[in-house]
Amino acid sequence: MRKILVIGSGKSTSYLIKYLLNKSESENLHLTIGDIDIEPAKKLINNHSNATAIKLDVFNEASRIKAIKNADIVVSMLPARFHIEVAKDCINYKKNMVTASYVSPEMQALNQDAKAHGLILMNEIGVDPGIDHMSAMHVLDRIRDKGGKIILFESFTGGLVAPESDNNLWNYKFTWNPRNVVIAGQGSAAKFLQEGTYKYIPYNRLFRRTEFLDIDGFGRFEAYANRDSLKYQSVYGLDHTKSLYRGTIRRVGFSRAWNIFVALGMTDDSYTIDDSENMSYRDFVNAFLPYSPTDSVELKLRHALKIDQDDIIWDKLVELDIFNDSKQVGLKKATPAQILQKILMDSWTLEPQDKDMIVMYHKFGYELDGKKHQIDATMVTLGEDQTYTAMAKTVGLPVAMATLAILNNKITTPGVQIPINKEVYEPILKELEAYGIVFKEKQVPYLGYNPETL
Amino acid sequence: MRKILVIGSGKSTSYLIKYLLNKSESENLHLTIGDIDIEPAKKLINNHSNATAIKLDVFNEASRIKAIKNADIVVSMLPARFHIEVAKDCINYKKNMVTASYVSPEMQALNQDAKAHGLILMNEIGVDPGIDHMSAMHVLDRIRDKGGKIILFESFTGGLVAPESDNNLWNYKFTWNPRNVVIAGQGSAAKFLQEGTYKYIPYNRLFRRTEFLDIDGFGRFEAYANRDSLKYQSVYGLDHTKSLYRGTIRRVGFSRAWNIFVALGMTDDSYTIDDSENMSYRDFVNAFLPYSPTDSVELKLRHALKIDQDDIIWDKLVELDIFNDSKQVGLKKATPAQILQKILMDSWTLEPQDKDMIVMYHKFGYELDGKKHQIDATMVTLGEDQTYTAMAKTVGLPVAMATLAILNNKITTPGVQIPINKEVYEPILKELEAYGIVFKEKQVPYLGYNPETL
Repeated sequence: MRKILVIGSGKSTSYLIKYLLNKSESENLHLTIGDIDIEPAKKLINNHSNATAIKLDVFNEASRIKAIKNADIVVSMLPARFHIEVAKDCINYKKNMVTASYVSPEMQALNQDAKAHGLILMNEIGVDPGIDHMSAMHVLDRIRDKGGKIILFESFTGGLVAPESDNNLWNYKFTWNPRNVVIAGQGSAAKFLQEGTYKYIPYNRLFRRTEFLDIDGFGRFEAYANRDSLKYQSVYGLDHTKSLYRGTIRRVGFSRAWNIFVALGMTDDSYTIDDSENMSYRDFVNAFLPYSPTDSVELKLRHALKIDQDDIIWDKLVELDIFNDSKQVGLKKATPAQILQKILMDSWTLEPQDKDMIVMYHKFGYELDGKKHQIDATMVTLGEDQTYTAMAKTVGLPVAMATLAILNNKITTPGVQIPINKEVYEPILKELEAYGIVFKEKQVPYLGYNPETL
Repeated sequence: MRKILVIGSGKSTSYLIKYLLNKSESENLHLTIGDIDIEPAKKLINNHSNATAIKLDVFNEASRIKAIKNADIVVSMLPARFHIEVAKDCINYKKNMVTASYVSPEMQALNQDAKAHGLILMNEIGVDPGIDHMSAMHVLDRIRDKGGKIILFESFTGGLVAPESDNNLWNYKFTWNPRNVVIAGQGSAAKFLQEGTYKYIPYNRLFRRTEFLDIDGFGRFEAYANRDSLKYQSVYGLDHTKSLYRGTIRRVGFSRAWNIFVALGMTDDSYTIDDSENMSYRDFVNAFLPYSPTDSVELKLRHALKIDQDDIIWDKLVELDIFNDSKQVGLKKATPAQILQKILMDSWTLEPQDKDMIVMYHKFGYELDGKKHQIDATMVTLGEDQTYTAMAKTVGLPVAMATLAILNNKITTPGVQIPINKEVYEPILKELEAYGIVFKEKQVPYLGYNPETL
């Protein structure tokens, strides 16, 4: 039996474990799932004979090393900051490793060691990052192989609620870490390239400079810019590409309403509110508005941000119950962002029957034979239930497939890797199609930069 | 002769030196002015027999110690971060010291040592901080001595251009460090107290939540909130005061126009723009607007921020020549804030004949004999010319007066001090009146919190 150690059995591991167990007979695999809490792993294994759940505290060096020494390959599904100790052990005990997380500077620093020992440390092979890399490189390489020159690349991903479970005015529920949604876009300005010129959007304008995206069968979406659209410019071979933009997908109208929170200061995570514990939701809103002995919180808010009473964003605010004076914040010394997160979780938490949805959209502009062309590629994946979510599917399946491919010597390039090489993306994208993760490509007129939508 | 060492001979020392030289015969004083550049000091001394200019590099320990040992009292007019070494020497060699700067944590840490040796380290005795402390405590103590209870305290200061030199649409010129003006208000939200409730204003709303202030003979001003209005709450004895607000004064309309820069992201100091050196002013503006093959920078800006063409803020932008495509930024790897500062300095630098103005406004709300009352106290000081500015006068005179009072044992409380005690503020405020720095008090109806203006 080839022994696979999976460290961590959180939300994104359901499909990963299911896939590997389904292959365990034909591929002769044994899975060990290590987590500090053994119960979720047991549930996912469901008494399968080719798997064992073990209690594993990743901070306990001895038990971590023991588990790693005993494996043929290690999959770390821990939060990103915990990968590094596992990775160092993998170098020491000559094990290949797979993660779905961004390559940290510490991880990158292991590149030479990994190469020297012929080891593969494969990272960023979930959905975003992961499927975005693979599906982008798949089209980019094909265009370049034909002699095309890439002049525009835009890439968008969003984790949303599936249409059948989409029953609030925001067309949004939390399908992943709520905190990341609340503080998204903070820090320095979003930076991207349009027609050869660097463009910058400050946080206070980020949610007012969205781009529309239409997907057949799913309608219209919008996207706001990621912090750094140029992160993979060189890695993707796009140093001479004039337009580069990466963004996050929401349903149309989300961003304009979200901007109310930004404008009020409710997403700020840099200071705490002294008396947050005993505040009502209404007090929280009022803390960002001038005092008045007579005017209501509602009128002050409408006046401050010039919101007409019949504007749909007003209904969105009311739906969240933010003006309720009997609901208590109940968090000690909380930042505005933490309080807002709590309020949103009342409304945006998935119900047991709710399904999620992953949406991806790439635009590829290129010149070939003296003409300009554009390919749009889109992918939509729906979740099945609260365990087998679209998020778990799109994160876990590529990780599982890469793990097996490494075991089977189908992926062989050593070092700290991300899935941008053909040996990785071609077989995995092909296999993902069997699981419904399919990119639909359309040849469209080259739009270049469309001034009407940005 | 009593020997006074003044370290630093920058912009704010003209009145300080003039005052002490005028008193040098009657008070038996000798001044030594130490600076790394001896020329400004020589000019200010103008061959006066009771003064010497010496070359002094504050980082050269031996020469610094020599100068300090040779003095009876030390005045440090260096930038605030350089005071601490001087202060430590003053402790070691048993010298009193005076500065106009905020008490740093390092300075505060010398409090016990200073007290143990009976030494006075007097700080924050310029204008803001300085005259604001003294004039506030003067009224606060008087109200409390009568048995009044303070229920509201608001305090505003501004460095502006004098009415006779006020000839641009912004009614503003740089009379102090331009950088501080460009980055004012950044960091976490402005915090203050209104009627017992903490209020927070995020940076993106700071310049849209101004308060109007009217001063007889000078017309209307506006003020935006300082970062921390509660900084001196305990120090002033205002722990039970329900409304506390500190702000910065501008002429009406400045803030609404300034907010355009904030909204575009032009005041951001947290990242650099790659090709800033070769940008025109117009390119700079365009970097914050979407690309368009056809639309003008002007129209894109008006559209993005919804500025009507006949709105006065549009004329203010045009006056700064920000749409000029032949003026070059010429700064390598500059932040947006640095570029904006350069553009503003083209328009807002004082001309040789220009005069500056310091404006201060305090509101004191109190309960006495079961009734609510309010006193408004205002002070306006005009500069004489580019050397004898209102800023130099209001910073330098209190420093000079405190220095002489310490020498004459009129100020005796040892330790790291700020001018909030009667022994300090009473004689100094009295003497400042002779120099035209006069607070006019008006008993007005208690307004409490006026919802129309904030």
